[in-house]
Amino acid sequence: MANPSLMMFGYTGRLREVLERISAKVGDTLRVEKGDTVYEGTLMPRTELGDPNCVVLKLPNGYNVGVRIGEDTKISKLSSGKFRRPKPPPLLAKPDPSKPLVTIVGTGGTIASRVDYRTGGVYPAFTPEEIYASVPEIAEVANVKLVEACNVFSEHMTPDLWIRIARTVVEELNSDARGVVIAHGTDTMAYTAAALSFMLRGLHKPVVLVGSQRSSDRPSSDAPMNLLSAVAVAARSQIAEVCVVMHGSVSDDFCLIHRGTKVRKCHTSRRDAFQTINDLPLGIVRDRRVEMLTQDYRRMNPKGRVELDDRIEPRVALVKVTPGMSGDQVLALLELGYRGIVVEGTGLGHAPESLFGAIKKAGEKGVPVVMTSQCLWGRIDMKVYSTGRDLLGMGVIPGEDMLPEVAYVKLMWVLGHVRKPDEVKALMLKNVAGEISSRTDLRTKPPSNPI
Amino acid sequence: MANPSLMMFGYTGRLREVLERISAKVGDTLRVEKGDTVYEGTLMPRTELGDPNCVVLKLPNGYNVGVRIGEDTKISKLSSGKFRRPKPPPLLAKPDPSKPLVTIVGTGGTIASRVDYRTGGVYPAFTPEEIYASVPEIAEVANVKLVEACNVFSEHMTPDLWIRIARTVVEELNSDARGVVIAHGTDTMAYTAAALSFMLRGLHKPVVLVGSQRSSDRPSSDAPMNLLSAVAVAARSQIAEVCVVMHGSVSDDFCLIHRGTKVRKCHTSRRDAFQTINDLPLGIVRDRRVEMLTQDYRRMNPKGRVELDDRIEPRVALVKVTPGMSGDQVLALLELGYRGIVVEGTGLGHAPESLFGAIKKAGEKGVPVVMTSQCLWGRIDMKVYSTGRDLLGMGVIPGEDMLPEVAYVKLMWVLGHVRKPDEVKALMLKNVAGEISSRTDLRTKPPSNPI
Repeated sequence: MANPSLMMFGYTGRLREVLERISAKVGDTLRVEKGDTVYEGTLMPRTELGDPNCVVLKLPNGYNVGVRIGEDTKISKLSSGKFRRPKPPPLLAKPDPSKPLVTIVGTGGTIASRVDYRTGGVYPAFTPEEIYASVPEIAEVANVKLVEACNVFSEHMTPDLWIRIARTVVEELNSDARGVVIAHGTDTMAYTAAALSFMLRGLHKPVVLVGSQRSSDRPSSDAPMNLLSAVAVAARSQIAEVCVVMHGSVSDDFCLIHRGTKVRKCHTSRRDAFQTINDLPLGIVRDRRVEMLTQDYRRMNPKGRVELDDRIEPRVALVKVTPGMSGDQVLALLELGYRGIVVEGTGLGHAPESLFGAIKKAGEKGVPVVMTSQCLWGRIDMKVYSTGRDLLGMGVIPGEDMLPEVAYVKLMWVLGHVRKPDEVKALMLKNVAGEISSRTDLRTKPPSNPI
Repeated sequence: MANPSLMMFGYTGRLREVLERISAKVGDTLRVEKGDTVYEGTLMPRTELGDPNCVVLKLPNGYNVGVRIGEDTKISKLSSGKFRRPKPPPLLAKPDPSKPLVTIVGTGGTIASRVDYRTGGVYPAFTPEEIYASVPEIAEVANVKLVEACNVFSEHMTPDLWIRIARTVVEELNSDARGVVIAHGTDTMAYTAAALSFMLRGLHKPVVLVGSQRSSDRPSSDAPMNLLSAVAVAARSQIAEVCVVMHGSVSDDFCLIHRGTKVRKCHTSRRDAFQTINDLPLGIVRDRRVEMLTQDYRRMNPKGRVELDDRIEPRVALVKVTPGMSGDQVLALLELGYRGIVVEGTGLGHAPESLFGAIKKAGEKGVPVVMTSQCLWGRIDMKVYSTGRDLLGMGVIPGEDMLPEVAYVKLMWVLGHVRKPDEVKALMLKNVAGEISSRTDLRTKPPSNPI
């Protein structure tokens, strides 16, 4: 029998006593009843960060759940399990001078950790050895260097952190890295990709954001293939743009390369959640091979130098309109001192007339208003119907085929550079980083229903 | 030569003089230069509602545009055209007693007019004769009766008008109509469909919303097929639910029947813009034949009686979260007296920690907060990550797989009925009108990129 103390790692105090009373060890299957809910799953190691009174169970669906044990819970052991300690990391492979250097920038996403520390694992270590150990094929593609820019869940990402990530990327690209991979949580990855697209001027090498939709300790995790594909794009592609590399289907057959200003997360949990909107993806990665789907991308120039242009105005608001919406919501933004507003309107770019007064007031105060569509697919055209023409008359800037989220990030960046209404409009309507397509590829499809 | 006055209809005053000076008649091709923009198109009749100083041109892309003629414009005639006056409407077909009665409720959408009055046409007439004239096949399916509930562009639809439409529908369904078709602009059609789904309790007959993405005077208009398909669903299907019937592809081959609580407009201009999200469409209509795709729908009961349940609380806000969003936006809503907030969060149902203070304050004030996802596809699961568990701890109600727009409408309706937090939560989590799927059909797909 293994040393019991080794088998209880992470659990301390009263909770450890409870577990010892039922002879529960990490790896055993437990049943916890709390109120109306019953959890049955495998006892996992606890993270130091979490609540010390929670047990972490891996449920049959693969997710980990933390359940706080107290007076209102009943806990019992269903069966003993085998918990295999993770293998110790191998010795660092010596850098292979024939391979390019790729810097992996950590931001707090789960992709690069062997066991997901957000969901209870105890090995959040983030070292090249760990990376090679979890995805050995990476060593065949590149020498990797690891840098941590920040450490937050992606839902807590902020414009300040975008800047910190951008600085790290610039430092790496202007030294030895052939490309950079940014490991990022998926929730707001598309926003960060857009922000970097605007902040990295004269980009001369690949910048690839990557994440995973499933914890990396699940057998069905998308983490290894996504990470390997992202490193392949950074090490081998000619793309000098910010892009997102994620699963292209629910099978482990290929990843897609999405332009950083044309992508959004379109599913809460599926592995192929990331979709290019209003354009074709840039390319496909199959087993480390990069195939381009378009010739319309910025090419790599190893002798170039990327400039950091991180002047932004973070006081921008995104307003999704709804029927019956009152103007008071927009007026409140003006009173709170917001400097720019992106409207997620309806259809071709409309807003209810109840907002007209507030939109006019924004114009009077010199607060630019940019129109996008909650349809997400398609292009703004405010000349078709009278509502659109009325809004144009109030100075509203039509957002072309920009995603609302991208227009939001872009307006922050634009307002960091210019303030005069004409200049704001001109820069918003200028294609800075692939965010505005000049024409719509006919193969670009909105979602279609299965029938 | 035709009577010139007939050929100038709609144009008066100074503009008429300008047109006469260049011998321009309705149907001629004109060129108008205004600033940097050049418009070339066919001169269309003017609507009485529009600006009397605008010429209405049909552009080669099929859209009509109104251009204000003034000091800054140059106008010239490129070629003469033939303008055929619309045929006079035929005599009213006698009602065929063997056919069911379908009431078409007008709301201001463009679908039922022969020439789109929003874009410059002169025949907005809305009579059974006009309907039979534009889509003669309708007379083979049903006797139609026309009722106008309101007359607004759909971007200006309001909760008050939802109630007016619902009242009209109840009146018709509880008398002779076998089903009701609601002609509605597409911008906010999905919101109205959701509102009616909640307001029509004990629904016993089909209620079908229909619209068109292209003006009905364009050769490529989707209006005739959509209207015919909608009437077919109202006259022939067994569906006792509120649904949306629109093109299922960009060809004129079939329409899809979408459940009113599971549909959204996913493209600004394509004919197949409407998509069922997180479920399968209810059925297909091919050339007046209704084929069901599921057995999971409410069946018709001709002897039933629908009840109007139109108590709603319109002071509900929809808040789409963004990285770096400050809590002041949510605090402002509380100060403005909003009674409920739907958060369009990230991923599985997360919000940035910068909003935590405001969300806690909402809880203290008894203002319910419902979580949905800006991914749109997939289901909320707030037990997976600690951010979600934190938000659950603050009393946030997980919106299951409800669309943000539907949760917004539902929260209005729920707050019209109950106010205690526990009761609000219970009703939000109860499937009232098909808005929450108990399980996800594996054939339900998010959008996929063409590769």
